[in-house]
Amino acid sequence: MTTRLDAAFAALSDPTRRGVLEQLGRGDASITELAERFRMTLTGMKKHVGVLEQAGLVTTRKIGRVRTCRLGPRRLEEETAWLERYRQLWDARFDELEQVVEELTRQERSDERRRRK
Amino acid sequence: MTTRLDAAFAALSDPTRRGVLEQLGRGDASITELAERFRMTLTGMKKHVGVLEQAGLVTTRKIGRVRTCRLGPRRLEEETAWLERYRQLWDARFDELEQVVEELTRQERSDERRRRK
Repeated sequence: MTTRLDAAFAALSDPTRRGVLEQLGRGDASITELAERFRMTLTGMKKHVGVLEQAGLVTTRKIGRVRTCRLGPRRLEEETAWLERYRQLWDARFDELEQVVEELTRQERSDERRRRK
Repeated sequence: MTTRLDAAFAALSDPTRRGVLEQLGRGDASITELAERFRMTLTGMKKHVGVLEQAGLVTTRKIGRVRTCRLGPRRLEEETAWLERYRQLWDARFDELEQVVEELTRQERSDERRRRK
């Protein structure tokens, strides 16, 4: 699970790889087509597809000389769940900090009022 | 925007860094405390915190000799939005493929029936 999250987030950390996923979301494509679309060498595109394949985000199939890429079985459920949980933590944490700041501001004001008397 | 997504996803691709974010979601902590909790050298933890800081996921503040870490300003909105969009593409793509498979199965069956006549 940890390694799956690691591999998926690492795969998503590159704009070309995110672009390839979006492209394959519209339809299967060969490595050559992807290389052309992203103005990249075949070798470069093969590497990116390899990273996506390892992360389970893409599957490839070779028929004759053409390797066709398709979206893989992973729907990024766990990654979405992790981000969801993180945002909940974040919200709770900043609510908490906000309350601390409010409390401090209130105290400061009442101290000031006391000093003025 | 692209570089922000790149940096955030890269920062999330490590289990210690994800753990640090979860930890800081529960409360601020010094680098020393984090290093102890994750059984890591100070140097190692400083590197991880540096990556999180660069991605806007953590802010640090040095008071005297202690550097305290806190969750940063980024709530991972764009990253969540990207994953959301990807899952929609994924669902649409697999619905489409499913229909193609159903259509092929239907044709095969009717061909078979014709052959049997």
